[in-house]
Amino acid sequence: MSNERVYNFSAGPSTLPVSVLQRCADEMLNYKGSGQSVMEMSHRSKVYDDIIVAVQANLRKVMNIPDNYKVLFLQGGASTQFAMVPMNLMTKNGIADYAVTGRFARSAYKEAKKYGDARCAFNGEENNFTTLPKQEELQLSADADYFHMCENNTIYGTKWQYVPQTLNNIPIVSDMSSCILSYPADVTKYGLIYAGAQKNMAPAGLTVVIIREDLIGEPMPFTPTMLNYGVMAESDSMHNTPPCYCIYVLGLVLEWIEGLGGLTAMQKINEEKAALLYNFLDESKLFTPVANKANRSIMNVTFVSPDKDTDALFVKEATAAGFVNLKGHKSVGGMRASIYNAMPTEGVAKLVEFMKKFEMDHK
Amino acid sequence: MSNERVYNFSAGPSTLPVSVLQRCADEMLNYKGSGQSVMEMSHRSKVYDDIIVAVQANLRKVMNIPDNYKVLFLQGGASTQFAMVPMNLMTKNGIADYAVTGRFARSAYKEAKKYGDARCAFNGEENNFTTLPKQEELQLSADADYFHMCENNTIYGTKWQYVPQTLNNIPIVSDMSSCILSYPADVTKYGLIYAGAQKNMAPAGLTVVIIREDLIGEPMPFTPTMLNYGVMAESDSMHNTPPCYCIYVLGLVLEWIEGLGGLTAMQKINEEKAALLYNFLDESKLFTPVANKANRSIMNVTFVSPDKDTDALFVKEATAAGFVNLKGHKSVGGMRASIYNAMPTEGVAKLVEFMKKFEMDHK
Repeated sequence: MSNERVYNFSAGPSTLPVSVLQRCADEMLNYKGSGQSVMEMSHRSKVYDDIIVAVQANLRKVMNIPDNYKVLFLQGGASTQFAMVPMNLMTKNGIADYAVTGRFARSAYKEAKKYGDARCAFNGEENNFTTLPKQEELQLSADADYFHMCENNTIYGTKWQYVPQTLNNIPIVSDMSSCILSYPADVTKYGLIYAGAQKNMAPAGLTVVIIREDLIGEPMPFTPTMLNYGVMAESDSMHNTPPCYCIYVLGLVLEWIEGLGGLTAMQKINEEKAALLYNFLDESKLFTPVANKANRSIMNVTFVSPDKDTDALFVKEATAAGFVNLKGHKSVGGMRASIYNAMPTEGVAKLVEFMKKFEMDHK
Repeated sequence: MSNERVYNFSAGPSTLPVSVLQRCADEMLNYKGSGQSVMEMSHRSKVYDDIIVAVQANLRKVMNIPDNYKVLFLQGGASTQFAMVPMNLMTKNGIADYAVTGRFARSAYKEAKKYGDARCAFNGEENNFTTLPKQEELQLSADADYFHMCENNTIYGTKWQYVPQTLNNIPIVSDMSSCILSYPADVTKYGLIYAGAQKNMAPAGLTVVIIREDLIGEPMPFTPTMLNYGVMAESDSMHNTPPCYCIYVLGLVLEWIEGLGGLTAMQKINEEKAALLYNFLDESKLFTPVANKANRSIMNVTFVSPDKDTDALFVKEATAAGFVNLKGHKSVGGMRASIYNAMPTEGVAKLVEFMKKFEMDHK
């Protein structure tokens, strides 16, 4: 059994800061003299209330969330939002525009069709989702209840580099699961932001929703109480027991981000980290980057070698060297290095070093 | 800051075995030489797959779950099941019988009314839910799609002492949130069992569903994909990222139960533990037990003192002495000692000792 930690390039759940894990371990049997683990605390107790209130305040501060937005701590992942969004928001004209920029965006689009007239504003399928639309390529409805986008497409390694203009200020709903907290997004440009926590925020089991208050209304009549934004907003995410421990870990992660200098500093670190890898890929004669250069994600970097055998060999040797979860998603093949906030620059630098050596050995 | 752990009588989230918390702490930075925390693992990785497969196998073994039942690891708590059950099961005749034996049972009943003809088979409201129905008191429909019960009513401290007979073998759906794993329930008598994990199983954020395979069918058309039992069963709870860390903790808890001798031994311990408290309450001149004697729960023990001031004083002094979360639910008042599996017998014995002293001081 090794005592060494690996460099974990998993697309999610994914690596967490070591200092956060150390706090989790240190506070596991007794959180700040309470005599309890955070995992054991009544969600209605003073000691836990202090935690959840502070986490929400910190998230608001770090992301610069205006007062007219509610922050909700929910469960069920982004996939549950695929239904919760239309059930709650597709209620005026029963129309919504979806930019289909990847597998998850497509799932969101298909799920929305159950609830109304979900329209495809862009379909990236023919390019295997390697390219994102320009503003003028979007087919937008003037009477949509919202426009839905997936901000960062984990599987393909693409990221929207601008926030689209909608017609008539139609609100934008964005799935930020794999890029939230990686840069200072302008929350005011969105009507609703949602994100599964298991990439940049916390362990799997928490979904963060940031919703502009005026969008909270009467959902469709068959909407489960637990999928009603209004109920969750009124109860401050305490209609039932929230995923308490994940929320606590999010708090530790936010403190860690603040310690680094907040989201502007975080973005700079992430851009430099990603550049290490993209610069190497652009010059490599063995590896080829997958995503269209103009749409590159700084969170998920996709690349291929000349053939599947070399892909497999690379993944195998990388794993043995302590670089784990580099295998690409089956729909893209090749490799994917997810380099979320908590992946240290050192981890990427060492991966590049390893790739250079692999290239030398296999040219 | 104290290094001492308290005795935590919270109704949920609630106390976990110290040995489980110690394992969590020890394995936090590096699970079994994987170089990763369980919180960081890809849910599709071999190392995590080994965990979730073992946890399911262990739950099947400990609860003696037959092969024709699926075990699902979901999110959203019992409150999400209040909708998921009717959306999936109230699909033949559109009728279901609900025994309204408490606040949560009533919420389940009200939620089901959104989806069809939910009928009240028993209403305990007039007795403030202190008494559960006898078999002959249940008003059962011959054409219901299922009968719903809440096995243990946390707020009132009542527990069904028998599994009802339904007409025409109509399947029973049971909310076992606050009594699962406390005794060897006969799974074959139920069509579906669900439970939020945060009492006897794991930290909040995991919902366990045990469903007889023949009950998995086509849900109502507007059912979110994430609330479709069939989708979750086919994907082995991996349609999206499950609450991985909670599932791991459930595994540690199951190992702890097995170490004690399984559910038969667990029940014996729980009955003896509860008897310590009930025997004292039955003889006390200051405290009065709330739940009808024939329906007493061995998980949640409710009691009152002669007046609200004495209740408040007791809770205050108990807290100061390290017995926390003893305040009763607002709808019952008084006190509630939740003595789930992980509450050591010593904790109950010391509480009784404290109560005796309090009674001496305040008679």
